[in-house]
Amino acid sequence: MWLAEVIVNYKIGILDPEAKAIQNALSSMGYEDVEQVVTGKYFQLTFGPKVNKETAENLTKESCDKLLSNPVIQDYSFQLKEVKE
Amino acid sequence: MWLAEVIVNYKIGILDPEAKAIQNALSSMGYEDVEQVVTGKYFQLTFGPKVNKETAENLTKESCDKLLSNPVIQDYSFQLKEVKE
Repeated sequence: MWLAEVIVNYKIGILDPEAKAIQNALSSMGYEDVEQVVTGKYFQLTFGPKVNKETAENLTKESCDKLLSNPVIQDYSFQLKEVKE
Repeated sequence: MWLAEVIVNYKIGILDPEAKAIQNALSSMGYEDVEQVVTGKYFQLTFGPKVNKETAENLTKESCDKLLSNPVIQDYSFQLKEVKE
């Protein structure tokens, strides 16, 4: 069976206030060596046993385009892994 | 320089309503081959040039324990990557 691990995060130039807040919090906790923070969403999609790698790739792309990401302000990347049932 | 990619997601047994909603939405869009959905948060922490791999690992663990995850209901995993400045 195939499993897709998807990361959705903001495009470069889009304001990410959560990342800024985390960086400020880390800095005030004494972790000043963290120079940059990026945040995003993580999704793991597990496909049924009849789905081959190519179909899994297409299904993941369509799910990201139509549901999991906002293509105006977000980018996504994913990798497929084969898992045992 | 070192960069940590962190995934925070719910522990097994903790209700994940967002994942359920995504699975229902995919199913109603005709993507019924998606058998399971897991959601989580993604964080990327970039460390300054003085931070070595061991320190980066410790800083990432401390950041996750103290700020980025709720250890009662969430697990985290991370991997470190070396990046050019």
